[in-house]
Amino acid sequence: MSSLFLRTLREDPADADVPSHRLLVRAGYIRRVAPGGYAWLPLGLRVLRNVERVVREEMDAIGAQEIQFPALLPREPYEATGRWTEYGPNIFRIKDRKGADYLLGPTHEELFTLTVKGEYSSYKDYPVILYQIQAKYRDEERPRAGILRGREFLMKDSYSFDLDDDGLSRSYLLHRDAYIRIFDRVGLRYVIVHAMSGAMGGSASEEFLAESEVGEDTFVRCPESGFAANVEAVTTPAPPAQPIEGKPDAQVHHTPSTPTIESLVDFLNAANLGRTFTAADTLKNVMVKIRQPGEDKWELLGVGVPGDREVDMKRLAASLSPAEVALLDDADFEANPFLVKGYIGPGALAANGVRYLVDPRVVTGTAWVTGADRADHHVVDLVCGRDFTPDGTVEAAEVREGDPSPDGAGVLVAARGIEIGHIFQLGRKYADAFTLDALGPDSKPIRITMGSYGIGVSRLVAAIAEQHHDDLGLVWPREVSPFDVHVVTAGKDDAVRGGAEELAAELDTAGIAVLLDDRPASPGVKFADAELVGVPTILVVGRGLAKGVVEVKDRATGERTEVPVEDAVRHLTALVRG
Amino acid sequence: MSSLFLRTLREDPADADVPSHRLLVRAGYIRRVAPGGYAWLPLGLRVLRNVERVVREEMDAIGAQEIQFPALLPREPYEATGRWTEYGPNIFRIKDRKGADYLLGPTHEELFTLTVKGEYSSYKDYPVILYQIQAKYRDEERPRAGILRGREFLMKDSYSFDLDDDGLSRSYLLHRDAYIRIFDRVGLRYVIVHAMSGAMGGSASEEFLAESEVGEDTFVRCPESGFAANVEAVTTPAPPAQPIEGKPDAQVHHTPSTPTIESLVDFLNAANLGRTFTAADTLKNVMVKIRQPGEDKWELLGVGVPGDREVDMKRLAASLSPAEVALLDDADFEANPFLVKGYIGPGALAANGVRYLVDPRVVTGTAWVTGADRADHHVVDLVCGRDFTPDGTVEAAEVREGDPSPDGAGVLVAARGIEIGHIFQLGRKYADAFTLDALGPDSKPIRITMGSYGIGVSRLVAAIAEQHHDDLGLVWPREVSPFDVHVVTAGKDDAVRGGAEELAAELDTAGIAVLLDDRPASPGVKFADAELVGVPTILVVGRGLAKGVVEVKDRATGERTEVPVEDAVRHLTALVRG
Repeated sequence: MSSLFLRTLREDPADADVPSHRLLVRAGYIRRVAPGGYAWLPLGLRVLRNVERVVREEMDAIGAQEIQFPALLPREPYEATGRWTEYGPNIFRIKDRKGADYLLGPTHEELFTLTVKGEYSSYKDYPVILYQIQAKYRDEERPRAGILRGREFLMKDSYSFDLDDDGLSRSYLLHRDAYIRIFDRVGLRYVIVHAMSGAMGGSASEEFLAESEVGEDTFVRCPESGFAANVEAVTTPAPPAQPIEGKPDAQVHHTPSTPTIESLVDFLNAANLGRTFTAADTLKNVMVKIRQPGEDKWELLGVGVPGDREVDMKRLAASLSPAEVALLDDADFEANPFLVKGYIGPGALAANGVRYLVDPRVVTGTAWVTGADRADHHVVDLVCGRDFTPDGTVEAAEVREGDPSPDGAGVLVAARGIEIGHIFQLGRKYADAFTLDALGPDSKPIRITMGSYGIGVSRLVAAIAEQHHDDLGLVWPREVSPFDVHVVTAGKDDAVRGGAEELAAELDTAGIAVLLDDRPASPGVKFADAELVGVPTILVVGRGLAKGVVEVKDRATGERTEVPVEDAVRHLTALVRG
Repeated sequence: MSSLFLRTLREDPADADVPSHRLLVRAGYIRRVAPGGYAWLPLGLRVLRNVERVVREEMDAIGAQEIQFPALLPREPYEATGRWTEYGPNIFRIKDRKGADYLLGPTHEELFTLTVKGEYSSYKDYPVILYQIQAKYRDEERPRAGILRGREFLMKDSYSFDLDDDGLSRSYLLHRDAYIRIFDRVGLRYVIVHAMSGAMGGSASEEFLAESEVGEDTFVRCPESGFAANVEAVTTPAPPAQPIEGKPDAQVHHTPSTPTIESLVDFLNAANLGRTFTAADTLKNVMVKIRQPGEDKWELLGVGVPGDREVDMKRLAASLSPAEVALLDDADFEANPFLVKGYIGPGALAANGVRYLVDPRVVTGTAWVTGADRADHHVVDLVCGRDFTPDGTVEAAEVREGDPSPDGAGVLVAARGIEIGHIFQLGRKYADAFTLDALGPDSKPIRITMGSYGIGVSRLVAAIAEQHHDDLGLVWPREVSPFDVHVVTAGKDDAVRGGAEELAAELDTAGIAVLLDDRPASPGVKFADAELVGVPTILVVGRGLAKGVVEVKDRATGERTEVPVEDAVRHLTALVRG
């Protein structure tokens, strides 16, 4: 430590608001050099390399082959798939000295597809899984939390190429298992959540979320069944249809001054209609417009959700993907005067040929209070299947704690997580864009089906730090710790120093990575730094040496064990080798 | 090989004009994805990682500490040192979504300096050597020769920080020795040449050039002494001064139609002046203009060289660095009518206060034929020190084979090389720019002195391929080969295949990296691919197996050795371990 390029800080950095950021800076693992850009100092780089090694070992173990693309990529392939435009301001774009367009790769689907197309031609060549571990770039609007969300970050991205859907499923499961092993080895608590694919298009998709209060991803899970999902991927169980017969007729009511659901419910309950209404009895119709990929024209769409829930635009967007969705503006309302703001009902939509999708809870026979398509008027007891017929259902209503789990096992609770991995059945989107075919046994082309799979390698370091720290500092899991043993001398006499150096040398010979604190600092400073740096095992060489003992301290538990000097190397080697 | 992501090509790629490029593409090591941008396929990445490992081991061995900066860097530090401007169109510049300026790092002097300043404060902290191995970017005007000159490439850059010049010398020599070990280990023939520093400013500087006909760097060396240098760094020995007394007076001659040195010499020799003139007797005055860094104004400068040599603008620029140098344009001549194009002599320069620098061969007492500052007139026997007095000397004349070696040991011969490393005493340029001081023992600040040191890691792969190939393919040195042993089966029967697989498995267990050709291809195809791929040892398992022997073939020499099957693993392990 006397020569290590490391200076720990006593104060928290001003710009750090999450524990991993604070501690990784204080303990000298990383330094900020630009917004969302960090330098890895020696300790940090050792942790990063350890994580990278675990990822590489597990990828190699499933037969994935490592290659490496440039980060600076030409525009054309991304133009071909539409991603050049779709990414908007989220990618870094560059013009070279000749004015040609380039980008800094966010992910490399296009290049992998083109490369496989360049090398492989026969069905006998497949399947293949390729990966790289490489700096990736995204021009995040708000880089935050140090290396948790940076603009340059290390990522493992892999891509599978299969002849058919069964093959894709196998490649997907291979990755799923590899990811489980990786995250287990680096000591993370995580959940695997069903995820919607968003802009990437495709079918099955799961995210690995490290549970953490500072995570940006919200998810829900069912404690009873272990079900976990992105809110975008939660499906709402439909209640059974109800008989229509016997329902009262629909009646239009004059409902002045009821601009909100709350005021409407209050009005109705004050109107003595013979029963009590709640917000859940109302049907709120939200108007949006959608545009299919490649189309210019926007189409109107009505979305009906129970009035006690907001429309969750992320859920709605995920449901309607790959179509683009936007709220109506004033011009849209002016152009469609049949839309009476605040009083829109299914009637006007049907009469004007506007598609109308409803929450899955809106089943045949359910009766609703909703807009009557006239200012200051609502209709009561509008029955689905009798008075209106939706064009289908849509997952648009917000998901709340206490909602039933889609698997029927219990109710959902909310949680937060850090996205550390994403596995994803792309299907044929990229193979279609670049005509990636294999020549089949019958000499007919077989369109290849793909998967893409990512792990945020540098983000993993932050996620591990979030889950493994205490008030004193970092507490690394053994597999990723920058060193195996941190040797601290307590006392300045030559015997102590000599003894510590000798033990460090013996450990080194035994293949143990040792950090020796040989600085002429006080024991207090050294102990504080050892706690901050977070190597899992601390060997204290101090006064006990005269009696032939040293102390082994477990960083995580604080437990101290006296060990005879002559047993120290054997004891520590056993600890490290686990 | 049946599953390896590798397809060898029979034809040379159309855009490849040097052997390394041709063979690395044909043998499936690299693939072009953009101008100057290459993907590393599995074999190529293994070689790259091997080279990287050697570099890392030797850097660690001199106590250098590895860190890692982003490649995407903010403009400000590069603005502070002037490099943002100096690099001109050679760096990639980017604006982020907020319009802030960034660049893709060409080298990281600024960031390392700032980081050391951020961490270190006392003289006790020094010296320190830091390095990184990282993708670097340069917007080359003409990327060429595959990975030999790309726009994105892998580089090891290190930086030393010392308290004084002696320290810098030590850090410099540590690097020099480490580089020698690195280049020796990866099997390169190279020379270490004295180099001029160019735009980086500083003092001692050496380049490591891998000897190669396809290299872009020319250098000269003296076979007798081993002296080697960049032409920019060659100094011209000055002959002894001659006595002025007894030299004939200068005489102006009317020399019509003598626009070239050759026509002038012919004219004079036809004029019966009693002696024979050669081009070396004439003094050619070339006008340039120079501008000091940070200045707006250009200054005229006359450069006099013997008429038998051209002015080498690279040598002139290096001599005048850090000033910028340019040839005069028509407007400059119009603005300075005393410059009579084609007939410029020292007289008009002196009369008009124009600085005049001459070749070191122009010493006191030497007599020259030169311009008389009048159209169609030259002056003969203009004697240096009598008729004109230069303001100093300058290394501007071209260096030629046969010129005397600066060390006086013999004559120079020309050669070409690939720049694989550069070590460089930066001095205090960057420490000055960022006020990098250490607090001394007397509490006074000590300005830090720096060195910077680079190795083109990806370029090394190309340089090794240039030196290690034959007509059949690549011939890797053992240390960097993608595999240790290439096992080829000759024959399709199960015994041969089973025997080969068994041997491959045993070698693998012994820690030998084996490439097993288990494809159902003909022995001819397999042998050709083995030669092309270039693993140093080829193990042929064929008909001999029935008699209990296999064949070990040395890729480099073609030598074949029959080895009993039961000895094969021991024999190969010994070969590989050297």
